[in-house]
Amino acid sequence: MPHSGEDDLIARFFAPLAGPGGLGLKDDAALLSVEPGFELVVTCDALVAGVHFFAEDPPDAIAQKALRVNLSDLAAKGACPTGFVLALALPRALKVDGWLAAFAEGLGTDIAAYKCPLLGGDTVMTPGPLMVSVTAFGAVPVGRMVARTGACPGDLLYVTGTVGDAALGLQVRLGALPGEGADHLLARYLRPQPRNVLASVLRDHASAAMDVSDGLIGDLAKMMRVSGTSAEIELACVPVSAQASAVIAAHPGALETALTGGDDYEILACVPPRNAAAFEGGAALAGMAVTRIGHVMKGQAAPRVRDASGAIMAFGRVSYSHF
Amino acid sequence: MPHSGEDDLIARFFAPLAGPGGLGLKDDAALLSVEPGFELVVTCDALVAGVHFFAEDPPDAIAQKALRVNLSDLAAKGACPTGFVLALALPRALKVDGWLAAFAEGLGTDIAAYKCPLLGGDTVMTPGPLMVSVTAFGAVPVGRMVARTGACPGDLLYVTGTVGDAALGLQVRLGALPGEGADHLLARYLRPQPRNVLASVLRDHASAAMDVSDGLIGDLAKMMRVSGTSAEIELACVPVSAQASAVIAAHPGALETALTGGDDYEILACVPPRNAAAFEGGAALAGMAVTRIGHVMKGQAAPRVRDASGAIMAFGRVSYSHF
Repeated sequence: MPHSGEDDLIARFFAPLAGPGGLGLKDDAALLSVEPGFELVVTCDALVAGVHFFAEDPPDAIAQKALRVNLSDLAAKGACPTGFVLALALPRALKVDGWLAAFAEGLGTDIAAYKCPLLGGDTVMTPGPLMVSVTAFGAVPVGRMVARTGACPGDLLYVTGTVGDAALGLQVRLGALPGEGADHLLARYLRPQPRNVLASVLRDHASAAMDVSDGLIGDLAKMMRVSGTSAEIELACVPVSAQASAVIAAHPGALETALTGGDDYEILACVPPRNAAAFEGGAALAGMAVTRIGHVMKGQAAPRVRDASGAIMAFGRVSYSHF
Repeated sequence: MPHSGEDDLIARFFAPLAGPGGLGLKDDAALLSVEPGFELVVTCDALVAGVHFFAEDPPDAIAQKALRVNLSDLAAKGACPTGFVLALALPRALKVDGWLAAFAEGLGTDIAAYKCPLLGGDTVMTPGPLMVSVTAFGAVPVGRMVARTGACPGDLLYVTGTVGDAALGLQVRLGALPGEGADHLLARYLRPQPRNVLASVLRDHASAAMDVSDGLIGDLAKMMRVSGTSAEIELACVPVSAQASAVIAAHPGALETALTGGDDYEILACVPPRNAAAFEGGAALAGMAVTRIGHVMKGQAAPRVRDASGAIMAFGRVSYSHF
């Protein structure tokens, strides 16, 4: 009895990546257990070729981006990854064998690195562009998920890593900024670095957090809006990489791109002042750079950014949106 | 601060459908609790316009098909639905407002009917066709999921409802079969009827089960293969609706379509003889027609179908595959 094509692809490329709950990818479904005293955080992000990545990107990078943008959400929520399912729509013209082998290899590397096994999924053909949709699961002790809605006036605002690299990397990729010496920016766009090492520190010390996927200013505004708060950040405090700094110095418009462009996948966290030392200490122990960039305020006003002179900056747009 | 387009769509169309674990769809993630003594069954099915449904299908039917094909997997595994996440890729040309309102209405009807709340998801734009990917969750007592791999020689084979309606409905839709009097077949293709009422009966009495999404013969072959068994079914026992029966009588090729075509979403179950009476009784109490169509056998041979004369039937293909 010949195997159907999908079963064959699954057996060759994906079954070797499955965790025990994936049941060898031979069933209609997977099993996911939750330890007593824990609950599951569930997140879902879909990426479309030509929208969220370039169709010609290396297949292993596409796989890793699709998984990592979801791992980043789990990190921001203080959750420990427990697995994911993958829906993959393959264009008819794709050379499936070679492409899937590289895609699966990239996925396998991250599955091991982030201890997040494949549980199942669906592979379909599409007359359209490649699309990768991941639903990822993480465990948190019951009631301990770090919400987006928990910011309180007086909380300190922290961000991990550096801001704007990926948005500038995309502009380099598009030819709108020079490519010379921009390898770090390009790499940040191609392969996000989710901050999962910070999950338990956030859970212990942050009042609210989210990952910065659509730009620092716009995502800060979202978190403040759902928390019923406002905020102020100081431009001089916002951490910027050396390469981004050089680009911004040479191209004045690049500052706005760095602050409002997407794909950073850093974490923006609100930390009560009494927890600040413990938060910073925990981050240092985890090897994760965190920088205090401002504070949460009362009110419903849009968050403000003060430049070095103390003036409030204005932006043409605050956030990346495909709509 | 203007909301981003995606946030606006979510707030208008999807937030009203969210269960408590969806956190108002204001966060990066959802929360999913599992009662002590239970574990989660996770399933994922993605549908692409032009491949799994027609782009011009009513939006409420598209929503319901996308959810129901996943509910069908949960039913086959003996799991009780607890929620789902939705990844939706919208073509740029779609008239988003009216389309999404109808899509959300269809989804809302099923969320209520199947008690399966929306937990979260992702909405993206695509230059390609509409795509809907659902990951659904169901609860089962620990260790009680009905596997696809559990068939034993001697088990009786049962199928719910009637076989082949949807595959014939698709042929009617494509103009390959006459449309007169085919409303039942068309409806079966457009809106699958997942057999969730049978979940606990399967859990209590079946040794293996799967839903029939790619054709009875091919899906039976899959279940036998992963169980390390063979099977024989009797054509005369296979339940067929009156409309399907009339089409098969008039168009000899339609029999193969009915037995090997996809989209039935009936459940194929293996039941040890000692459980047969209880299984049939439980199904009757649940109001679900089940029909004994054959039995599981030793060996690795492909399952056989005997016609009314006792001859073994041959099929050009055994299963629907997009690959």
